[in-house]
Amino acid sequence: MATTLKVKLEPLTREAYAPYGDVIDMEDVDHFSINEGAIERFHDLATVDIGADEGGRTLISIALCNRADTLPYKLPHVERHPLGSQAFLPLDDTPVIVVVAPHGESVDPKDIKAFISNGKQGINYSRAVWHMPLIALKEGQQMIIVDRGGPGNNCEILFSGS
Amino acid sequence: MATTLKVKLEPLTREAYAPYGDVIDMEDVDHFSINEGAIERFHDLATVDIGADEGGRTLISIALCNRADTLPYKLPHVERHPLGSQAFLPLDDTPVIVVVAPHGESVDPKDIKAFISNGKQGINYSRAVWHMPLIALKEGQQMIIVDRGGPGNNCEILFSGS
Repeated sequence: MATTLKVKLEPLTREAYAPYGDVIDMEDVDHFSINEGAIERFHDLATVDIGADEGGRTLISIALCNRADTLPYKLPHVERHPLGSQAFLPLDDTPVIVVVAPHGESVDPKDIKAFISNGKQGINYSRAVWHMPLIALKEGQQMIIVDRGGPGNNCEILFSGS
Repeated sequence: MATTLKVKLEPLTREAYAPYGDVIDMEDVDHFSINEGAIERFHDLATVDIGADEGGRTLISIALCNRADTLPYKLPHVERHPLGSQAFLPLDDTPVIVVVAPHGESVDPKDIKAFISNGKQGINYSRAVWHMPLIALKEGQQMIIVDRGGPGNNCEILFSGS
């Protein structure tokens, strides 16, 4: 049975998103000069967890959005990656909507949070955080993905009503 | 003593760059649909080597170019990262010049290669490949860095004339 759920859209901030992972941007973070001052390095912005002990390795991939999503949004499912983290980094200046729920064996709809990014912010889902697929607002939008490859089932899905 | 070296600038292609690491882009690579067809994933575009066995972990950082470099370029040094790979992914559509030399204990100037990217291509230096700091052509240019953190000395430098 389909469920209608109203979720308030909050601005994506480091503080509000902290229980779910990392906001990846240059605001208020450590940085230092490298290459004889030519470059400022905004350093170590996410906890990349690839479960190396279980044979995990780091993947760099690119996501290309085939269609613009629209609101209200029909939530197909929530998913989580029990073996590693997953980061998305925008390659164009377009916001995304990030929908997450706390760690746990299942998801209580009242705990679902939705954040809208400012277009420059990337996000990292920490290991096993429930999330909906990103809601992309522009067809052709591109993002870098940094996540985990290797043995084991790294995707668990909960369908609405299941 | 300063040395003048003329290096021919070649277009950055996957084939020409293969001895030094990976070109990271969407040309001619595997991709598949995820999220019920909403997104096309161009998958696993680089060999990210963080030496997990020696305590390495994956870092995501952002590089901000403080100044535009100009040609001819005064090469300050070449360096290599003996404990892991290092990837740079452009966040704006601006080419960079990538200068590399083959694996080995030292660098023979005649083996130095210089590539110019098309603005969309990222590059990954494989572990221990000699390279010069990227030559960035625009002040304010930004790049994602994916490289290795953890114990040990991960930067070896050779100065010109040393």
